[in-house]
Amino acid sequence: MAEEIQKKSVRAGVLVTGTEVLTATIVDRNGPWLSEQLTALGIELAEILIVADHADDLLSGLRHMESIGLDLVITTGGLGPTADDLTAEVVGRFTERELVLDREMEDRIAAILARFAKTSPVKLAPAGLNAANRKQAMVPEGAVPLDPVGTAPGLIVPGSGGMVVLVLPGPPRELQPMWRTALEEPLIKEITERATQLNSYRLRMFGTPESELALSLREIEADGLDISQLEVTTCLRKGEVEIDVRYRDGATETAEGLREALHMRHERTLYSLDGTTIDEMVAGLLKGRRLGLAESCSAGLLAARITNVPGASGHFAGGVVSYSNEAKAELLGVDQGLLDEFGAVSPEVARAMAEGALERFDADVSLSVTGIAGPGGGSEEKPVGFVCFHAMTSDGGERTLTPVIPGGRSDIRERSALVAMHLLRLLLTD
Amino acid sequence: MAEEIQKKSVRAGVLVTGTEVLTATIVDRNGPWLSEQLTALGIELAEILIVADHADDLLSGLRHMESIGLDLVITTGGLGPTADDLTAEVVGRFTERELVLDREMEDRIAAILARFAKTSPVKLAPAGLNAANRKQAMVPEGAVPLDPVGTAPGLIVPGSGGMVVLVLPGPPRELQPMWRTALEEPLIKEITERATQLNSYRLRMFGTPESELALSLREIEADGLDISQLEVTTCLRKGEVEIDVRYRDGATETAEGLREALHMRHERTLYSLDGTTIDEMVAGLLKGRRLGLAESCSAGLLAARITNVPGASGHFAGGVVSYSNEAKAELLGVDQGLLDEFGAVSPEVARAMAEGALERFDADVSLSVTGIAGPGGGSEEKPVGFVCFHAMTSDGGERTLTPVIPGGRSDIRERSALVAMHLLRLLLTD
Repeated sequence: MAEEIQKKSVRAGVLVTGTEVLTATIVDRNGPWLSEQLTALGIELAEILIVADHADDLLSGLRHMESIGLDLVITTGGLGPTADDLTAEVVGRFTERELVLDREMEDRIAAILARFAKTSPVKLAPAGLNAANRKQAMVPEGAVPLDPVGTAPGLIVPGSGGMVVLVLPGPPRELQPMWRTALEEPLIKEITERATQLNSYRLRMFGTPESELALSLREIEADGLDISQLEVTTCLRKGEVEIDVRYRDGATETAEGLREALHMRHERTLYSLDGTTIDEMVAGLLKGRRLGLAESCSAGLLAARITNVPGASGHFAGGVVSYSNEAKAELLGVDQGLLDEFGAVSPEVARAMAEGALERFDADVSLSVTGIAGPGGGSEEKPVGFVCFHAMTSDGGERTLTPVIPGGRSDIRERSALVAMHLLRLLLTD
Repeated sequence: MAEEIQKKSVRAGVLVTGTEVLTATIVDRNGPWLSEQLTALGIELAEILIVADHADDLLSGLRHMESIGLDLVITTGGLGPTADDLTAEVVGRFTERELVLDREMEDRIAAILARFAKTSPVKLAPAGLNAANRKQAMVPEGAVPLDPVGTAPGLIVPGSGGMVVLVLPGPPRELQPMWRTALEEPLIKEITERATQLNSYRLRMFGTPESELALSLREIEADGLDISQLEVTTCLRKGEVEIDVRYRDGATETAEGLREALHMRHERTLYSLDGTTIDEMVAGLLKGRRLGLAESCSAGLLAARITNVPGASGHFAGGVVSYSNEAKAELLGVDQGLLDEFGAVSPEVARAMAEGALERFDADVSLSVTGIAGPGGGSEEKPVGFVCFHAMTSDGGERTLTPVIPGGRSDIRERSALVAMHLLRLLLTD
């Protein structure tokens, strides 16, 4: 214990410049990509700030990031040749460094532009090229320039308050290689070496609401497990709860203790202890079998989900989207008497649909979904969201469910496909 | 001119809370959506700041936004029942307002949770529910609560410096309706009324690349239309190009001139002049008809798309997802000889599948899709992305297409469903 040095966590920020990102014209891919890179290095990403191409907004963003004590700020974009590309200049102002012409860089950019001009479909004016070239070769004094991947050089600029600013270009195919180059530079290396890499795992739950999970976490803590050593984030995503746990080496035992405690408390719903998705799990369980589907309200969403996994043709024979009663009778052989007596949305018809799919596709496993997706068509007995599921195997296995699924039309349809996946999992792990 | 008052621009910021967004676990959809909403209201979005679920980061973010003089900050997320959901508390601290229990809100949330508990597949502990409930009903004193769409109420909180904080939940399907409610509240209305609203329209294109559209815009400008009066954004979205045009009252004539000029230049591909989507258009064209589908590589995505429109059962009979050759033969009556001679992915089999769908579903219109979605299964003659489409009507109308669609497996599958929608449109408008 005496030898162990408590490391202070290293924190970074990403400052995205670009009116086109802010106006939702393009989606920022650099923020998420850099987030993953930083996390893998054990650096905590404190925030991502997206600002327009205005000098004032950029400058106030840098000041804000300095004020919250970040070790590293990565700016993306604003390094091009046009007037609204002003990152180098603003970072120079922020770090109180004069812009000076880097002649070596100027020559390098000139060579790149000459190559570019030769292959360009339009004739480029030399005067415009030279001005652009010179602008891009202006570097804050004392900064470390990074060679262009496209035409724009990057920069590493030490700030007065100890915060280093890494200036990268906006296009991901330029930013990504330049990031790797930057990692080799002493100014950046010094930061990454202070960081401690984090371990992590992910759990997935289906059927337990977040509120109940919150209660479990509080109780597990009350039982004596020091969860404060871990970073636990829970996230409701597409109808399931994802639990991400991040921890430093010293907290491995606590992290494993939490995994076990959650598993014990939620054995029925905590279906993935290692991050495996339900889609991967069902694909694995179907290996060596043949699946046939009969869908009404989910109308192809389940088939699309099953076949989203490459190689699905090895275990998926096909499906019928039986949106009309005629289709249920004609393509799945559902008895008209059942449809008349119980209605198209009933456990009885669901069973007949599953039987039909098993037979028509000559399958080993089948599953049917029939329900009321709304907005119309509901009744007191069978409200909007009432969905009947029936799963069966050719050797006599059966599983059914008849929940009322909350939400609007597309929620009900998508949730139906998800419930069906879990019913398949339960059927095949019996 | 003397009477016209130059309005000061109204500026807003979006503060996204969520470690899961910051760690790139989920993609933030709220920032871009709110950006579009604000722009439509004539409010300038100054920045989007994404922070982790830590009180300090959230608080410093709010202080930063106040320091740059914003009129409105919209926070998203952090309103759930777990301990890392702390937006309401931090906004209370920022605006120097004590948290007080809103009893009416507590009752409303309790009623929502009781409904939820009734339909849950697992039994929920009342203690957990009550604690979660009470936490979500704690409101900064003097704030205006907004009724929950899910279980979390929103808030409008006036700050001391004149900046109003609008607190919205993270899930888009809760945030979007609550945003509309908030617009009716006096505190928000007062801000939106200070902004000058923009007029706008949206065009949709399929089949023209963005670069060609950019060239058209330059040429239209060179022909004398002063496009600089308009705010034109083009965006490649789900395989189509969306063109948004925003303009102030004085520029109406120019905006209409642009709509007309684009229509003349791209008559074949500019299919929507008023923002109507292809899905809405096809649903309209199918009114009074019955559609049957036969899908291989799109595997239900087309059926799911057709039925995403409420009331689809009026014109959609059903579909077969014929993933195996057996299914093509057994369920669609495709001749085994055709499969042997031309292969499952061929114009000949596509035609037989469409005929089978027309007959089996007793339909007036049918469409088939069969292709190679990859990653495996391609050949020199039939590479990955080669997809055969065949659309027909019972009275002899026919349309075919056999493109090679670029991209990965899911691009090819989704693009197949989109191409099929446009083929239906062309068939039915012939």
